[in-house]
Amino acid sequence: MLTIALPKGALLQESIQVCQKAGLDFSLFLQEGNRQLQISDSRGLAKAILVRAQDVPVYVEYGQAHLGIVGLDVLREKKAEVAHLADLGFGYCRMSVAVPATSPYRSSLDLPAHSIVASKFVNCAKEYFRSLGLPVEIVPLYGSVELGPITGMSAAIVDLVSTGKTLRENGLVEIDVLFESTAYLIANPLSYRLNCYDARQWVEKIAGVNCHKPS
Amino acid sequence: MLTIALPKGALLQESIQVCQKAGLDFSLFLQEGNRQLQISDSRGLAKAILVRAQDVPVYVEYGQAHLGIVGLDVLREKKAEVAHLADLGFGYCRMSVAVPATSPYRSSLDLPAHSIVASKFVNCAKEYFRSLGLPVEIVPLYGSVELGPITGMSAAIVDLVSTGKTLRENGLVEIDVLFESTAYLIANPLSYRLNCYDARQWVEKIAGVNCHKPS
Repeated sequence: MLTIALPKGALLQESIQVCQKAGLDFSLFLQEGNRQLQISDSRGLAKAILVRAQDVPVYVEYGQAHLGIVGLDVLREKKAEVAHLADLGFGYCRMSVAVPATSPYRSSLDLPAHSIVASKFVNCAKEYFRSLGLPVEIVPLYGSVELGPITGMSAAIVDLVSTGKTLRENGLVEIDVLFESTAYLIANPLSYRLNCYDARQWVEKIAGVNCHKPS
Repeated sequence: MLTIALPKGALLQESIQVCQKAGLDFSLFLQEGNRQLQISDSRGLAKAILVRAQDVPVYVEYGQAHLGIVGLDVLREKKAEVAHLADLGFGYCRMSVAVPATSPYRSSLDLPAHSIVASKFVNCAKEYFRSLGLPVEIVPLYGSVELGPITGMSAAIVDLVSTGKTLRENGLVEIDVLFESTAYLIANPLSYRLNCYDARQWVEKIAGVNCHKPS
């Protein structure tokens, strides 16, 4: 049966809506108290697994899921070998460099060489500063990256920003945008090429659902 | 002021108890609705920062915290340059290899060469299988590692086990223990050597609090 990996967290609700419009009902995942991580759609057409956003590309790369929905931020960070089939348009946010509002830096290139930059997105941050030719030390953090500058550990952070509320609450300002991110439909390249379980038909249906980027 | 990094999650309550017995009150972190990530103890003797367990060794290594409390599992995985000062005895769990109860494998060495092993603790898993001389492919997952064998992606997992309930609920059995883990008191090596803010006195007090390993 066709298997789709869906991401826990911020993108889940809209991912399920997109699947629903394409004819696959996985709304059970949204029911309060649901503990199941694997369900079949109500008509038995496909299966979905509910995993951490960072794990979606892993399950798709290893073929345990034929398709998946996940943010471009995760795809850029993980560099998994999966086919990026369609920008689904929802879940807009941006990967940004931020510094304390009180710092003198107003662009990434203002940062002194060998500054410390904290991030959950180590690969994205490394690539970006390498592209600028600015040698910095990237310190990997798992949570509350904004504590990096607050405690004085790092001069800047690279993190996902959607409304900017967390940055403001912590006295930080965005000074550069690495890239914008939305939810993507991805596929295991082999499953897609061999059209396992009519994968292509489902891709067309899911990608065909109208999604609009918030302005 | 002396700064201690405390880990969010399972070890927080006992970490705060240990500090309290040593004369530092950070119980504010346990109050419902608390959103502060940095507080001073009620007598103004020291400061604590509340961070993800994986980030404790980072803040201590970079010197933003002089001391920290964190599980040996995280220390083994992150290999941070911090001094391991004392086993505080609480937070017992073990890093184990588990397989589906229905599988024929009853020890790690039963796994076929090039098996896939899913884990959040990639470095611990790699080191362990290297020490066995068994070449396996370690797949990094961030959450619900037990889905690895359930979906058929991996033959085994390496994960933290405390009561074993999650394993049982998912039809998995422990077949080997890599190491046992408890909470450790760690220090920034330089801060400790230079005895910044009387660090050594606090280390003695915290390490002197009686903790017993659950049997």
